[in-house]
Amino acid sequence: MSFNTFGRVFRFTTWGESHGPAIGAVVDGCPPGLSINAETDIQPFLDKRRPGTSKFTTQRQEPDQVRILSGVFEGKTTGTPIALMIENVDQRSKDYSDVAKAYRPGHADYAYDAKYGFRDYRGGGRSSARETASRVAAGAVARLVIPDVDIFAYVSAIGDDAIDPARFDPAEIDRNPFFCPDPVAAQRWEALVDGARLDGSSLGAVVECIAIGVPAGWGAPLYAKLDAELAAAMMSINAVKGVEIGDGFAAARLRGEDNADPMRPGPDGAPQFMANHAGGIAGGISTGQPVKVRVAFKPTSSILIPVDTVTREGEPADIITKGRHDPCVGIRGVPVVEAMMALVLADQRLLHRAQCGEAGGD
Amino acid sequence: MSFNTFGRVFRFTTWGESHGPAIGAVVDGCPPGLSINAETDIQPFLDKRRPGTSKFTTQRQEPDQVRILSGVFEGKTTGTPIALMIENVDQRSKDYSDVAKAYRPGHADYAYDAKYGFRDYRGGGRSSARETASRVAAGAVARLVIPDVDIFAYVSAIGDDAIDPARFDPAEIDRNPFFCPDPVAAQRWEALVDGARLDGSSLGAVVECIAIGVPAGWGAPLYAKLDAELAAAMMSINAVKGVEIGDGFAAARLRGEDNADPMRPGPDGAPQFMANHAGGIAGGISTGQPVKVRVAFKPTSSILIPVDTVTREGEPADIITKGRHDPCVGIRGVPVVEAMMALVLADQRLLHRAQCGEAGGD
Amino acid sequence: MSFNTFGRVFRFTTWGESHGPAIGAVVDGCPPGLSINAETDIQPFLDKRRPGTSKFTTQRQEPDQVRILSGVFEGKTTGTPIALMIENVDQRSKDYSDVAKAYRPGHADYAYDAKYGFRDYRGGGRSSARETASRVAAGAVARLVIPDVDIFAYVSAIGDDAIDPARFDPAEIDRNPFFCPDPVAAQRWEALVDGARLDGSSLGAVVECIAIGVPAGWGAPLYAKLDAELAAAMMSINAVKGVEIGDGFAAARLRGEDNADPMRPGPDGAPQFMANHAGGIAGGISTGQPVKVRVAFKPTSSILIPVDTVTREGEPADIITKGRHDPCVGIRGVPVVEAMMALVLADQRLLHRAQCGEAGGD
Amino acid sequence: MSFNTFGRVFRFTTWGESHGPAIGAVVDGCPPGLSINAETDIQPFLDKRRPGTSKFTTQRQEPDQVRILSGVFEGKTTGTPIALMIENVDQRSKDYSDVAKAYRPGHADYAYDAKYGFRDYRGGGRSSARETASRVAAGAVARLVIPDVDIFAYVSAIGDDAIDPARFDPAEIDRNPFFCPDPVAAQRWEALVDGARLDGSSLGAVVECIAIGVPAGWGAPLYAKLDAELAAAMMSINAVKGVEIGDGFAAARLRGEDNADPMRPGPDGAPQFMANHAGGIAGGISTGQPVKVRVAFKPTSSILIPVDTVTREGEPADIITKGRHDPCVGIRGVPVVEAMMALVLADQRLLHRAQCGEAGGD
Repeated sequence: MSFNTFGRVFRFTTWGESHGPAIGAVVDGCPPGLSINAETDIQPFLDKRRPGTSKFTTQRQEPDQVRILSGVFEGKTTGTPIALMIENVDQRSKDYSDVAKAYRPGHADYAYDAKYGFRDYRGGGRSSARETASRVAAGAVARLVIPDVDIFAYVSAIGDDAIDPARFDPAEIDRNPFFCPDPVAAQRWEALVDGARLDGSSLGAVVECIAIGVPAGWGAPLYAKLDAELAAAMMSINAVKGVEIGDGFAAARLRGEDNADPMRPGPDGAPQFMANHAGGIAGGISTGQPVKVRVAFKPTSSILIPVDTVTREGEPADIITKGRHDPCVGIRGVPVVEAMMALVLADQRLLHRAQCGEAGGD
Repeated sequence: MSFNTFGRVFRFTTWGESHGPAIGAVVDGCPPGLSINAETDIQPFLDKRRPGTSKFTTQRQEPDQVRILSGVFEGKTTGTPIALMIENVDQRSKDYSDVAKAYRPGHADYAYDAKYGFRDYRGGGRSSARETASRVAAGAVARLVIPDVDIFAYVSAIGDDAIDPARFDPAEIDRNPFFCPDPVAAQRWEALVDGARLDGSSLGAVVECIAIGVPAGWGAPLYAKLDAELAAAMMSINAVKGVEIGDGFAAARLRGEDNADPMRPGPDGAPQFMANHAGGIAGGISTGQPVKVRVAFKPTSSILIPVDTVTREGEPADIITKGRHDPCVGIRGVPVVEAMMALVLADQRLLHRAQCGEAGGD
Repeated sequence: MSFNTFGRVFRFTTWGESHGPAIGAVVDGCPPGLSINAETDIQPFLDKRRPGTSKFTTQRQEPDQVRILSGVFEGKTTGTPIALMIENVDQRSKDYSDVAKAYRPGHADYAYDAKYGFRDYRGGGRSSARETASRVAAGAVARLVIPDVDIFAYVSAIGDDAIDPARFDPAEIDRNPFFCPDPVAAQRWEALVDGARLDGSSLGAVVECIAIGVPAGWGAPLYAKLDAELAAAMMSINAVKGVEIGDGFAAARLRGEDNADPMRPGPDGAPQFMANHAGGIAGGISTGQPVKVRVAFKPTSSILIPVDTVTREGEPADIITKGRHDPCVGIRGVPVVEAMMALVLADQRLLHRAQCGEAGGD
Repeated sequence: MSFNTFGRVFRFTTWGESHGPAIGAVVDGCPPGLSINAETDIQPFLDKRRPGTSKFTTQRQEPDQVRILSGVFEGKTTGTPIALMIENVDQRSKDYSDVAKAYRPGHADYAYDAKYGFRDYRGGGRSSARETASRVAAGAVARLVIPDVDIFAYVSAIGDDAIDPARFDPAEIDRNPFFCPDPVAAQRWEALVDGARLDGSSLGAVVECIAIGVPAGWGAPLYAKLDAELAAAMMSINAVKGVEIGDGFAAARLRGEDNADPMRPGPDGAPQFMANHAGGIAGGISTGQPVKVRVAFKPTSSILIPVDTVTREGEPADIITKGRHDPCVGIRGVPVVEAMMALVLADQRLLHRAQCGEAGGD
């Protein structure tokens, strides 16, 4: 079964393929009365994800202009479904003729054929990362539902070259084409990523995302825990192979006393945490600390270096993936990770309000 | 909102607290006509998870005897809900008096209070790992739905002491109290875990789980992808802070050509993979290779070493968690991880059959 | 697929068969902090539905004593799943030997066999109206979520003998064994129902349910409209074949001007309706008027008059249904209809709060 | 919360308002490999529902041309979401200026304001019956999933003028503008409906729908019973106030022996039913007989006869609804009822396959 809807009460459904006429999302359950403007509230996030903005991303040229087709009246959300549509403009189907015949290792080609019996092979069809533009648009709506939450993501490592935490500066993130908060690393990455591009190779990356301003109390134990929802949300992004909350795998190497987040009375009477190993989530519920997620992107499988494969008929072959690809798909993953964070938090805010009312943990 | 149901068509709902009269699960959507026997099909998995079996786990004594209350007739599933119940026998509420007053850092205490306004503080209430017994019981039913899939998990590291892959031997897993596939590591861990126990401390762990025999084609893109469902399932387990599919974060350090899983024609005509960096999942759909998941368990927060905290009234305090706790909760996480793998795969099998029929990717 | 869960955010799951050891419900998503007591808040509704209280209902003797197994601490709901269990006491399996062999026309026997390949034939198994006790227990919890809503149902017709609206008196409902608001009709029904019982026959009935105090604004258009949810809820009850909102089918015979519910300014400034053809729902959303539902119960198919049928092997047979049955199953449907009304309204209240906040239409 | 998705595994989501740029549906979970052509498989059903085809329906001129934007490749469904879009062409917003100020009794105006705080008043916005075009488009896709099922609906009564069952002829249904199977009634209705139109009034209607070829075994007890799903589906249609399965309310007037559907061995060994009071559903599961549903449509509330109302500011007013309206909205309800029947059955077919496999009750 193909389930293209995410969320429990704030829900979105995406549709569309890489080389169809358009892609889009339907956002359902949005509270009414929120001011919304496609140009200023949604488009900037799409622009951030847009391909073709530097030589470090795919050269496909897509304006990614979003249209709101429903659910908004006189500049406000009405509480009815918000349909968002983005037309596909730069589709070069000719680039993908080889893909129809043989499976690209690491891609969804073989799995889709095994599942569905055939596939739309043009640019990966539904499995293309192009779908993530719909998520970014939906995520922009989600941000309106949680106006007091500040969400930002950045690349913390490309390949095995990580940022230096001592040089972490959020202001740097938007000053380089890598969403890198460490200006020195950003400079190194120019050569690193360009080298991979010229080699016809690709690089993995780690994206970190932080949400500040999430009040204590969001999360729906046990199977819609905030961290479980975030894990599903992030793992559903193309090329993602790992998700960590807070210290993640590093926590597995700690002793209990070192992993504890001690508390003391805070200035306003509320407890104040003295560490955040937990990444702002305990028992699946937010603690009021920053919510922290780390996401591992594999190197894109679309490379110019030949790889052994088989054809649909079972014959041996080798394949290179021509066309316009990201040498490091994790970079453009940054706005997508942010969008998924916003979508999960908006849903959890409304879920919390449903069960506990505004006064609950808000 | 509290969502205690997991799954799309094969669904289970759990209920119960650490110190209530019982805990249980309702399994819904199970195919009819499957032979099932509580003693031989479910109890062995509960026995594997049962506390008090060695000094390396909590000394709480629970027989964890499961009863089937519905959904089975003349030894076969009827297709109606299967209610499973496990009575709580060894509840020592007196151990938890301090917990009522002050928040245990790292526990869900503060988050539950922030969300719900109050909490059942006896043994963690609903946030106790005791709930995972219900998952193990439900998971045992799930295994009946996927009889051709072999699922096993093991501990691959405790603290920073990992197994040596060269000594990996599945036969060892059940020969030591750590579910450790490396006999040499298992021996080292005796001292390691016992030391932590005597220190009143605790240790994190990494659990790996492998499912062999999953056919190509299971998975429901985009938001019920097999890997997204596994990520949610694993992250919903108590103390879990990270999930990886296949190479996980290590893939983020690779180049595209090194991360590829090349294919060649196999002996039976079907493609054969020459590597499994992907962990058996591409585009959210199984590829027919072993499905591999890694899960990070933090050290349990229940330790005898005092940690700074605050009381419910906002006064500073320090707290130690007396009572009977696991020095390394990841160990007993092994059957829970297996259960969640089984539950996700059973659901995905039925979802796949719904959309594509038996002949699809089966 | 067998879906035994109802509701969107306030959800309940039922399990159990007529002749298993017990039946039960898990209520999930209940707001925390509600005072609840099994004896005073739940048991009275079960007692109302309990069999064996007069000669006009089945003689099966079931105390229907409910136990709360989880989700309540110190007399208050905790926000975690509330497990309710009712033991089956009076199971006489011997009564049902014929049923194993041949299909009872009008019962679910053949349909269950066709679907699942076999069935638990003891007392109808899962298809028995005994399951509705679980609904009544869950519905009692739902009432706590909507304390300002007053829900009551009554029988408005048995067979073709209807009450006289001019004699409608709510105070009469609990004064006779038929939940009849018209004392004259109640007297007539004694002979009517007893006659059917002595004939070994059965009678259909119409149950009406009214909810007073539902504020304007509850309902989730388009596919979780308040009336659509009510229709599903009522039609899911055993033996129900029709559902009407407000004037229902009678509205189809009216002209627009006669079906309108005109409005005028009310004493408190809010609009006041001058009629309620709509049954308190417009566009799937409550209007603030009483919510009115009518439900048709067929005569139970369990009769002592022989009916032609076939055996499982396809041989012709005739069958009578011995055992203890309700001559008019609609009578005991009254508390079940009330429970479903409460369950739908509780869910819709929380859904409304999720999207629109407390201040919305509350 | 606004839930605009219907279905469990075959799911559709609709979006759009009466006077927005377009309306549409996303169909998710459709099996792959089905041949589909917008012109021949979907458009004919939209044409059947299209306004402006006779003087007996609204004069709004909408070509209702459907476009498939995704989910289809080389003429076949791919198993990914099928996005369908219909542009709104003939929007005369000026007609609706009065509606902004005062509530039209019987319409959703007041309820939407009460729920959301404001509303898109142009043509009813989201509450307009225009949304049903999206359902008809989605329903056309659903029909492809159940190719062996023949679905047809018709009007059986307008106002209090019903067809004569003795003259029932399915071939007549498409020969008159009323979808009337009785040619004599159809002739009477010309004057009846035209009279109401000239009076500025409106008429209610009853629509009946029959599905032939549904195998025994579809239905998901208890809360996704086939009849419960049909009840929800039908009640979610604009202007519907009642739903009956089989004999419906008439069954409530029968005795058990008269309501029974006796069985005898059929020519092919399968049981043969000798009556169909149950409407093809027992215990929530199809019996293999024709599935029969009756639906009551109220007279549209849009009439030219003044009705008392209040303004948004609470002042008394009277209102007439100018513009282009259906004198009997039930007529155009026929293809919508058919669509909902198809959507429910397609979903139930896949649900059944999920749990029981193809061989189950198929």
